[in-house]
Amino acid sequence: MFKTLSNLEKKEVIVAPSLLAANFLQLQHDIDMVNNSEAAWLHLDVMDGRFVPNISYGMPIIAQVSQACTKVADVHLMIEQPDLYIADFKKAGAQVITVHQEACTHLHRTIQLIHSLDMKAGVALNPATPVHTLEDIIADIDLVLIMSVNPGFGGQKFIQHTIKKIMQARELIDRTGSRALIEVDGGINLENAHAIVQAGADVLVAGSTVFASSNPVQTIAQLKQAGK
Amino acid sequence: MFKTLSNLEKKEVIVAPSLLAANFLQLQHDIDMVNNSEAAWLHLDVMDGRFVPNISYGMPIIAQVSQACTKVADVHLMIEQPDLYIADFKKAGAQVITVHQEACTHLHRTIQLIHSLDMKAGVALNPATPVHTLEDIIADIDLVLIMSVNPGFGGQKFIQHTIKKIMQARELIDRTGSRALIEVDGGINLENAHAIVQAGADVLVAGSTVFASSNPVQTIAQLKQAGK
Amino acid sequence: MFKTLSNLEKKEVIVAPSLLAANFLQLQHDIDMVNNSEAAWLHLDVMDGRFVPNISYGMPIIAQVSQACTKVADVHLMIEQPDLYIADFKKAGAQVITVHQEACTHLHRTIQLIHSLDMKAGVALNPATPVHTLEDIIADIDLVLIMSVNPGFGGQKFIQHTIKKIMQARELIDRTGSRALIEVDGGINLENAHAIVQAGADVLVAGSTVFASSNPVQTIAQLKQAGK
Amino acid sequence: MFKTLSNLEKKEVIVAPSLLAANFLQLQHDIDMVNNSEAAWLHLDVMDGRFVPNISYGMPIIAQVSQACTKVADVHLMIEQPDLYIADFKKAGAQVITVHQEACTHLHRTIQLIHSLDMKAGVALNPATPVHTLEDIIADIDLVLIMSVNPGFGGQKFIQHTIKKIMQARELIDRTGSRALIEVDGGINLENAHAIVQAGADVLVAGSTVFASSNPVQTIAQLKQAGK
Amino acid sequence: MFKTLSNLEKKEVIVAPSLLAANFLQLQHDIDMVNNSEAAWLHLDVMDGRFVPNISYGMPIIAQVSQACTKVADVHLMIEQPDLYIADFKKAGAQVITVHQEACTHLHRTIQLIHSLDMKAGVALNPATPVHTLEDIIADIDLVLIMSVNPGFGGQKFIQHTIKKIMQARELIDRTGSRALIEVDGGINLENAHAIVQAGADVLVAGSTVFASSNPVQTIAQLKQAGK
Amino acid sequence: MFKTLSNLEKKEVIVAPSLLAANFLQLQHDIDMVNNSEAAWLHLDVMDGRFVPNISYGMPIIAQVSQACTKVADVHLMIEQPDLYIADFKKAGAQVITVHQEACTHLHRTIQLIHSLDMKAGVALNPATPVHTLEDIIADIDLVLIMSVNPGFGGQKFIQHTIKKIMQARELIDRTGSRALIEVDGGINLENAHAIVQAGADVLVAGSTVFASSNPVQTIAQLKQAGK
Repeated sequence: MFKTLSNLEKKEVIVAPSLLAANFLQLQHDIDMVNNSEAAWLHLDVMDGRFVPNISYGMPIIAQVSQACTKVADVHLMIEQPDLYIADFKKAGAQVITVHQEACTHLHRTIQLIHSLDMKAGVALNPATPVHTLEDIIADIDLVLIMSVNPGFGGQKFIQHTIKKIMQARELIDRTGSRALIEVDGGINLENAHAIVQAGADVLVAGSTVFASSNPVQTIAQLKQAGK
Repeated sequence: MFKTLSNLEKKEVIVAPSLLAANFLQLQHDIDMVNNSEAAWLHLDVMDGRFVPNISYGMPIIAQVSQACTKVADVHLMIEQPDLYIADFKKAGAQVITVHQEACTHLHRTIQLIHSLDMKAGVALNPATPVHTLEDIIADIDLVLIMSVNPGFGGQKFIQHTIKKIMQARELIDRTGSRALIEVDGGINLENAHAIVQAGADVLVAGSTVFASSNPVQTIAQLKQAGK
Repeated sequence: MFKTLSNLEKKEVIVAPSLLAANFLQLQHDIDMVNNSEAAWLHLDVMDGRFVPNISYGMPIIAQVSQACTKVADVHLMIEQPDLYIADFKKAGAQVITVHQEACTHLHRTIQLIHSLDMKAGVALNPATPVHTLEDIIADIDLVLIMSVNPGFGGQKFIQHTIKKIMQARELIDRTGSRALIEVDGGINLENAHAIVQAGADVLVAGSTVFASSNPVQTIAQLKQAGK
Repeated sequence: MFKTLSNLEKKEVIVAPSLLAANFLQLQHDIDMVNNSEAAWLHLDVMDGRFVPNISYGMPIIAQVSQACTKVADVHLMIEQPDLYIADFKKAGAQVITVHQEACTHLHRTIQLIHSLDMKAGVALNPATPVHTLEDIIADIDLVLIMSVNPGFGGQKFIQHTIKKIMQARELIDRTGSRALIEVDGGINLENAHAIVQAGADVLVAGSTVFASSNPVQTIAQLKQAGK
Repeated sequence: MFKTLSNLEKKEVIVAPSLLAANFLQLQHDIDMVNNSEAAWLHLDVMDGRFVPNISYGMPIIAQVSQACTKVADVHLMIEQPDLYIADFKKAGAQVITVHQEACTHLHRTIQLIHSLDMKAGVALNPATPVHTLEDIIADIDLVLIMSVNPGFGGQKFIQHTIKKIMQARELIDRTGSRALIEVDGGINLENAHAIVQAGADVLVAGSTVFASSNPVQTIAQLKQAGK
Repeated sequence: MFKTLSNLEKKEVIVAPSLLAANFLQLQHDIDMVNNSEAAWLHLDVMDGRFVPNISYGMPIIAQVSQACTKVADVHLMIEQPDLYIADFKKAGAQVITVHQEACTHLHRTIQLIHSLDMKAGVALNPATPVHTLEDIIADIDLVLIMSVNPGFGGQKFIQHTIKKIMQARELIDRTGSRALIEVDGGINLENAHAIVQAGADVLVAGSTVFASSNPVQTIAQLKQAGK
């Protein structure tokens, strides 16, 4: 069962391996690895082929993963009209649900809906979307997810400009007294992890960096360490 | 690698286990079972949360399955605007691609596109969509997929009216000299398989009937046998 | 409270005044008139400005009407994606819900949803939509609504070709043993009511014919009588 | 007939009762109450079930209301593609039309269209939409509508963060010399009205606060007084 | 100025050169050729990149063509929501407007709209769309346009199955006493023109066959002759 | 052939006549005029009837223009989902492609796509869209297109507020060290050209000002001169 998340803790860097980079022929094996690692969260990338030009996986697969994984289920919805499916993802085991600013006409309502189902709520920003679009929602959310690549595919290169956006998000959060954590997703590796955390990140998503490494458990530990 | 499909053969009943009912924590294991069974095809249900109210899985998962499975990849696209992704599914290993009549404004063009990429092309009909909507495309397609439940979820009960539609499809195919096979999807089990094949079906999709059985290999054999 | 509809009765012509033609400044008065008349149903036209180019009224107004009206609530949804709101209309008091064939990709699922909420389910056809589109759903529905004008506005002239469509619907229903009633909506008056019922109609919707008449209760009685 | 609005006056707090909270069985009665009160405007909430998840009422109902109401018709369009219907709402009697920033790709054109039909033009902001999105349109509009609840339903609680947004809107208007009034909608009552006006609001929308009160005329007067 | 079309005449085969195949650097020259030929109509293919995957040209170009062309302007709208632009095409000079069955939810209303603006109204069918979808509109229209290629691009090969559809359209028209002409569009040349007219066609659209020929005026005359 | 654009040069004011204002009956003539003028670019306005309420012209016409024009092809896409067609416009000869901020959910990806095809990439802003929406993309683009009228139609009046937006864009570009040029489109004439360039514009689009003038070549020269 996914771990229940009561409070978002800022003490340590959170590493969130992205399941999309795992071996889907042997998910149990890869999830066991995550369970035995210092990763605190499991990042779950849901793509619908409409908001992004790829279809990854959805509720039925996450529901199966929930039976094996003991970490926090961190669900990133790269889908249109996420309100339609938030209750379904809750049933599948989600504890953190992140929606895209660009996908939500009624972002405050969507956040209310996630909270009403006892989950943490995040908002993701595409690379070209400014941080200041969050000014009137930052006080209500638990997570800002800054995309450091264009969402939809793994294995892309970190967009360097993201460092500046992380700092802007940190400034916004500190200025408004928001509790929100900052998560960064895309192209994170052992070389850039430190700079990303220095800029203000709390949660590091890592896909191929973890699952394509020869020792994923160690890589996770190193990412966490690099973040300090 | 998926098996290359050169010609559609009508000699025997084709059983196509639906991967969505497999254990996603142990896909290799379940695919091995299919490889070792009398199943000729593996049915792959792609759902985008727009055409149907569920998100299953897409290209990246199928690409991984293609490395393990030795059967024919039978991809059922329950998605909007399928033309946008047909080349991607080809790359992921698809050999048969079935699109929905209800999702295709330019159905003839979509079929042309599938054929231009050297795949077999099918058209699926929702339970309320009449067979006569296929009159002007039947000669061009390789497969008619008659949904015997509403697409989007496994484990539903076979809609009895489907038998009549299978007979209508058989009549249309015979009258026009079409090469199309008839596939039926939803609620098929050992009790109704015979009647379904008697009505005219060539391909039987089976999900929980196979994967929830105590002996899936045997169940597949029995489904094939029941169809005679 | 709206009257509970247990069984659809075919004995007598059902007259269904359309609330959109009533005086919205004095709805209680007009509903009292309907309550005291021989009308068996109250027809409620819901338009969303997307499926049809007009916005009429929706759930909150119907919920208020339900407190005053003692007839059967016959809700005609001229809206896109009706599945999203069917439960809301049930809460507002609906007993019969009719959706448009042209608005429902998964018509069988929509009908299942209406039935699962203990309501009667109808399917409406626009003037240019053939009756044969209903072949595979006729056995599952309680009502066929044949539009005799283009939906969206009151006060239009009856399209004469509708008579032929009513006869086709009657033939389809009789041939398949369906329980469905035939409802006709648009331009019905004392002159054409008889011919419409002779062609096969069971339910007559009437808007301005009723509410713009000097004696609406009498007009309703005359419509019912004309139908014999 | 609705009152013709020549100039927007800032002298006094404008109270705008929201018709959606009225008794639709007795609209004449409730409109008479508004006519006899100190309310200057009547707020008309149009919802299409697409921009917001509710359908309220549209042009035909407003056209009937226009025959009875002597106040200014303040139409709030919670609809997609409002340009398609602006002329229809003019015909129905609208004098102020407010569209949503989130619904208008070509906001400047929409404002031009409203003005070309001799109406006042407003722009509404959802709770999560920043005031700075209005920077390049503020000089052209007559009204900023700040939503203090998520649009779509009555009876919600005032979002406290709105106070800050009202102050930001006031600052933007003063800095640019815009003529725009500030309207606030959602959860306004006798307790918070004063603070809302102090923050910069010119127009107070009130629904259940007015219509569910034992003395609506007095409540309207009190809201106006509280605003001083 | 385009020629005013009073009555659709069935006496002779109508040849309609398609402007999309003309030389857009020298339109005046190519239109003069058409003016001096036996072509009775000029076919104008409007594509919006949404209904079909190409953008051709629209109202402003047609308005300029109208100043030079003395033939009947036969406008084929390969666009979504054609109702939004029908009045604009009238202003640009259209005399016949053909919309796609697949693009019109309210086909009868669209036809009414075209007629209300004093134009002739046609309905086009994609290659996979059956003729029987027109059963309830055939009596109201002036033209059936049978696509013999998938709409969107010139220079495609005639789909042979079209011959059967032309015969079905002819049968439907004769059986119902409709006045509708049958137009065929796509891949028509001097080899197949005779068979197409024999099957029942009244109007032949020809693009590259005309404009890529060494003697377009003669080719038009030959097409007309071949049709006899 | 269009001129190949290697580097964007800022030395002189660039005048870009808009083809939509040319005489489409004699395009060769008007393009020859442009070729012989001091215009450096040819502005090509593509409208799809969905993003803007007009359909202008698309790839096949541009492909023909490319055979005659020796200037830089500056393609302004006023279309939805531009990613679908960017490769097609490249094939038609485009060297600069500008997309609308309001049309691109994944603006960074769209810019990447344009660059990956060896073209220059611009972003256009509607009149009501603030310059600060570009903060996180300005470093990646080659052009900012500030609309000084609402896109969709020629012959409109310059919106005076645009001057302020040009200055803001100039400030943003200078502050971030971006290489982007500033292009302005709509209502530019000999009277306001100087002020527009003074505010910071590098590229002036001109439609009727050029093509409706008695001496277009001279007018282009004067526009360029006025800009100094």
